[in-house]
Amino acid sequence: MENTPGSLGTKTSLSLRLGQAMFSSASLLFMSVGVEFYSYTAFCYLVTIMGLVIPWSFTLAMVDAYALFIQCPLRQPSIMVIIVVGDWVLSMLSLAAACATASSIELLLKIDGPFCAPKFCGRYELSAAMAFVSWILTGASSLCNLWILASW
Amino acid sequence: MENTPGSLGTKTSLSLRLGQAMFSSASLLFMSVGVEFYSYTAFCYLVTIMGLVIPWSFTLAMVDAYALFIQCPLRQPSIMVIIVVGDWVLSMLSLAAACATASSIELLLKIDGPFCAPKFCGRYELSAAMAFVSWILTGASSLCNLWILASW
Repeated sequence: MENTPGSLGTKTSLSLRLGQAMFSSASLLFMSVGVEFYSYTAFCYLVTIMGLVIPWSFTLAMVDAYALFIQCPLRQPSIMVIIVVGDWVLSMLSLAAACATASSIELLLKIDGPFCAPKFCGRYELSAAMAFVSWILTGASSLCNLWILASW
Repeated sequence: MENTPGSLGTKTSLSLRLGQAMFSSASLLFMSVGVEFYSYTAFCYLVTIMGLVIPWSFTLAMVDAYALFIQCPLRQPSIMVIIVVGDWVLSMLSLAAACATASSIELLLKIDGPFCAPKFCGRYELSAAMAFVSWILTGASSLCNLWILASW
């Protein structure tokens, strides 16, 4: 059980957390730098959720790094439950934000008009893709920790 | 364990399944009857997913009713795993479809033009709301069965 890959305090978990922090930061940057994202509700929602995922993943990456450094996995059942529930909620919210953004982009591209310049829409698309990757990584972390929790 | 509400073969599970079948049928009907849903990708996606949720929930409602009738919960671990995974995947897909639909409606209402007549947009909104309820019920079923599976 100690070596279950992806659970808190392992190298896989650290990689997953760093990946989540990286992809959610990329999603936030692509959406917010130089782009008027606040015109559309779905885009604001994505920015909000990515703003939640980044500190969560970064904090847990620090915890993983600390656990690897002191060679002792920090596994209290109550902490694990909080992490599993937090990951699960954030993964749901990320999926919802990514889908909402993707469908808005699809609609903006379909409707002719001054709604989406090609340069901006490309960035929105990249942002949605990064949010999807972030969702997959958060979901993987949640499942790995749930597995550990269920096997106790 | 036998009396855990919401697990396969209980009255709560039967109610959840009937609720899922009802709300997903309502979502499908509001979206498809007399409305040109095939113009938008998100709406087609919602119709597809609701078309998957309806037979799944209806079949499991029949299984629940049969288990209640013969007074014997049908709980093979392999069947439970299939049900939990199926519920989980369908609940994710329902959430994605509901969010995509909701964000498309929000955008259609925002953009002036012949894209969304008030009568049609009202129906789309109802359809998205029903899909959200269906997601919550499917998620509840999945969690209840996962609980049973984890407690073995």
